[in-house]
Amino acid sequence: MRRDLSGIGASRGAALGRARVRLPHALEVEQAYIDESEVDEELARVHRAIDQVRDEMHQLRERLHGALAHEVGEFLDLHALLLDDPELLQGLDRYIRLKRYTADYALRRQRDRIANVFLGMDDPYLRSRIDDIDQVIGRIHAALHQRDAELQGVAGDILVTDAIAPAEVAQLQAQGVLAVVTTTGSALSHSAILARSLHLPLIVGASHALQWLNDGDVIVVDGGTGTVIREPNAADLKAHQQRVNAYKREHKQLNRLRREPTRTLDGADIKLWANAESRDDVAEAHALGAAGVGLYRTEFLFLGTHELPDEDTQFRAYRDLILGLTGRTATIRTLDLGADKADDTGLALRNEENPALGLRGIRLSMSRREIFRTQLRAILRASGYGPLRVLLPMISGREEIRAARALMDEVANELRAEGQAIASHIPLGAMIEVPSAAIALTTFIREIDFLSVGTNDLVQYVLAADRNNEYLGDLYSPLHPALLHLLHDVLRTGARHDKPVAICGEMAGDPSFTPLLLALGLEEFSLHPGTLLEVRRAIRAVNLGELRTQARSLLRAGDRSGIERWMRANAP
Amino acid sequence: MRRDLSGIGASRGAALGRARVRLPHALEVEQAYIDESEVDEELARVHRAIDQVRDEMHQLRERLHGALAHEVGEFLDLHALLLDDPELLQGLDRYIRLKRYTADYALRRQRDRIANVFLGMDDPYLRSRIDDIDQVIGRIHAALHQRDAELQGVAGDILVTDAIAPAEVAQLQAQGVLAVVTTTGSALSHSAILARSLHLPLIVGASHALQWLNDGDVIVVDGGTGTVIREPNAADLKAHQQRVNAYKREHKQLNRLRREPTRTLDGADIKLWANAESRDDVAEAHALGAAGVGLYRTEFLFLGTHELPDEDTQFRAYRDLILGLTGRTATIRTLDLGADKADDTGLALRNEENPALGLRGIRLSMSRREIFRTQLRAILRASGYGPLRVLLPMISGREEIRAARALMDEVANELRAEGQAIASHIPLGAMIEVPSAAIALTTFIREIDFLSVGTNDLVQYVLAADRNNEYLGDLYSPLHPALLHLLHDVLRTGARHDKPVAICGEMAGDPSFTPLLLALGLEEFSLHPGTLLEVRRAIRAVNLGELRTQARSLLRAGDRSGIERWMRANAP
Repeated sequence: MRRDLSGIGASRGAALGRARVRLPHALEVEQAYIDESEVDEELARVHRAIDQVRDEMHQLRERLHGALAHEVGEFLDLHALLLDDPELLQGLDRYIRLKRYTADYALRRQRDRIANVFLGMDDPYLRSRIDDIDQVIGRIHAALHQRDAELQGVAGDILVTDAIAPAEVAQLQAQGVLAVVTTTGSALSHSAILARSLHLPLIVGASHALQWLNDGDVIVVDGGTGTVIREPNAADLKAHQQRVNAYKREHKQLNRLRREPTRTLDGADIKLWANAESRDDVAEAHALGAAGVGLYRTEFLFLGTHELPDEDTQFRAYRDLILGLTGRTATIRTLDLGADKADDTGLALRNEENPALGLRGIRLSMSRREIFRTQLRAILRASGYGPLRVLLPMISGREEIRAARALMDEVANELRAEGQAIASHIPLGAMIEVPSAAIALTTFIREIDFLSVGTNDLVQYVLAADRNNEYLGDLYSPLHPALLHLLHDVLRTGARHDKPVAICGEMAGDPSFTPLLLALGLEEFSLHPGTLLEVRRAIRAVNLGELRTQARSLLRAGDRSGIERWMRANAP
Repeated sequence: MRRDLSGIGASRGAALGRARVRLPHALEVEQAYIDESEVDEELARVHRAIDQVRDEMHQLRERLHGALAHEVGEFLDLHALLLDDPELLQGLDRYIRLKRYTADYALRRQRDRIANVFLGMDDPYLRSRIDDIDQVIGRIHAALHQRDAELQGVAGDILVTDAIAPAEVAQLQAQGVLAVVTTTGSALSHSAILARSLHLPLIVGASHALQWLNDGDVIVVDGGTGTVIREPNAADLKAHQQRVNAYKREHKQLNRLRREPTRTLDGADIKLWANAESRDDVAEAHALGAAGVGLYRTEFLFLGTHELPDEDTQFRAYRDLILGLTGRTATIRTLDLGADKADDTGLALRNEENPALGLRGIRLSMSRREIFRTQLRAILRASGYGPLRVLLPMISGREEIRAARALMDEVANELRAEGQAIASHIPLGAMIEVPSAAIALTTFIREIDFLSVGTNDLVQYVLAADRNNEYLGDLYSPLHPALLHLLHDVLRTGARHDKPVAICGEMAGDPSFTPLLLALGLEEFSLHPGTLLEVRRAIRAVNLGELRTQARSLLRAGDRSGIERWMRANAP
């Protein structure tokens, strides 16, 4: 029977497909037994399935690149660990060999046994550990039945579930899942921001979805309005087709913006930089008319390798980036490795109690000067091939800027003495992500050439809330008055000293934040090419002068809900 | 032959004794063998020594209380783990049983073997891990020879070494070591702050000390001037005696301040609160004329126990505190447990990647409302016995204040309905330690009654630098312009809204920071009773009006060295 449900539209797009219902914490399998003669074959099946899942996860890991790799990689690594857990594997073997359970039932019993241990702990941490176990068990289960792995969702399905983690969003999109409907969540959550940047339609807060939808139901969803319709009738299907066409038209219109300037209604030009590492991203940035690359993360050169990249290897990577940009500026951020990044070179510390508050970014570079010197030599040598800026991560104050600048000057003189062709002036910039750098900006702004605000980390430190800690719920959010005040101050200080300021965190790439950032004074966005056109469209839809007059009311908001009200009132 | 050396006086006090030289990373033991017949006895000796060390560490752990317990406890826990490491123990057994090494030589070989593994990693983290291993091995070695454990230092000795960790400072003081001389370090390091608060004379940066001093040399040190004299002559001894007398006189004079008001030269009264949990600290606070208890940490009720303390247990603790204060105010901070605190109740999460940025303080309390409700009931019931204030840790903004206030009101109504006698008004305050609370203070200051700035955590978040991370060197420091600006803003906002603001971090208890804090506008200090009189003396030596006129020049300092210059120029 037809039924419609409503949720909150968190990521636009229309989809028609079968619902894949993922019930929380459950694997619906009946008790079933095998004959003794089947034991070996059943064991072999399970192990083949586990091997298959291991391969899939490995491939998924390989496919990830850029910012997502860091984000999603750690979840995948955790799951890979669970997959090799002797407790899990031996338990399965035992159930099949001794109890003669079918592989499916053994999996379910194993899952329940482990989940019970966590449940018995009465600790909020248990929930996500069970989720991880369910995801791994779910993958094995799917592999057993030759279905595409995780989430029991395949290309063409619409996932319906209680909640979705940021890491899953990327996986689902890669698998060709059409859309996601969740019963909880917020349109400004980390998962929602990611879904928008990946163009995966998402509806959150559809609280009755698990109650009314069954696995296999045909549903129609609209991520724009937040509507979900079960068993659509002819009129619904027609409306869906119209929406699909509308989105297509919109996509086309969006594509027309490739050659348009990034200019507000009242004629202010805004600069859009691309965050890009791969050749594809750089080419795309070019095609979209980005001002250049605003954030080139160099970590990827250090990840997935057991040896530190030497000067020539780095030089070639930086030079190729610059050549690919044919005259537009490349902003190369020096190494920002921390214990949270899975490098195999032994460069990052492994045992810090709070790696996010540890030896990372410029701190690590200055404590391993020879490695930093090698990187600076490679970057400076590349500067002979086109315009380039150097960006320093995790700057906390003036001393670090001076020390880095001195080393850069030393390296430049050394290279010139060697007869290398390097640019006469190489702009040096600081990431603003450590709160002290934002607060004490006036103490060093004269000593740098440009700024790039890393809102992802800045929010984390300002709120003392790890962005990957699921127990903090909505606490990690850029919509805190403290963050807006800091951004406003940084932008004002930058303008007063005539130093360009970009924002390169996820906020910059999400059009729902565009009016807010423009109101605060932002004139340069640095974002993944995937959402560049949407942000350009959002910019072209607003009147900058009017928005700026609204900054005061925005800064008066006393909490998140006040800021959200402002965003609704000022949405383009 | 007489020789004098100079370093930096980091903690005042004079000492005369034998130098105990601790060379970095070395256990000086010759290769030596035992007979087969001695194997069992040698094994038994080693195991007795290990058991003895385990006991000593356990006792040391028990003796710690208050803030130090958190600080030092984790190092001790780590060492206790090493002591039980099967690799370490089996290796020792193997060397003695199979190779017939003496216990001493087996220890040294084991130490070198483990150290080599770390050294091979070429990672800055290795250094401290080797230090930990050396400390544990050193303790076992000392126990083998019936010497008092760790650091090969005994009561009456003066330790001479390369560097000293904050955890060691407390241990040495507890063991009766007279003074410490290090070749590196800074007078404003965490270790130096701790040494001053424990009155352990400390000289840092005496760079030639390890070169010129041998184990057993008689030396004279003055922690005030930073002088070290080897083989003192008659004149040196006389000068030492004069210094000892001078320090004694000073101590006497300090004790006279017990009954004096905490008033600046120009007549401004400053409030000194005590940070106190133990009965002794509360009694001492009373005797010193503290305004009351400014910080009563409730964590100790939850630590070292497998069960959560029930309402009555908590109520009795809070009531006894209030009765002990005979009318002065008690400020009770609600639970600030995080994964870094070693509770056994399962309340804190164990697996957060960055516990300092995790579910702690008010966040944990609000996510475990029944536990928070129990604590609030116990506190509110105690309010019937005398003046009491409630302080909320880890507040990030207005929403948390409102949620906590609502719960407190609910609990108060419940208790009144039950006929309990509770105070008609219970002031509610917020810790200012999360940067967002400091930055967005105006959004919630009207909703609270008082503030207490936790500079220890605030510095950590503002600089994104874990205070316990040794690789960050001097990065963790309150002497950053960003911190001073934040403190100044918080104090100004507090004054404008007529809300009292105290500082309860270590800064408040160190007289070297007193003029700086007064200049920024601080009028209430909350500190351990151990340094209350020194801070009172520092306050009585300054002219507040003059200091305040110097605030502007302090706030203009662009970096740490500028702030240090100001501190030298304005030292009382």
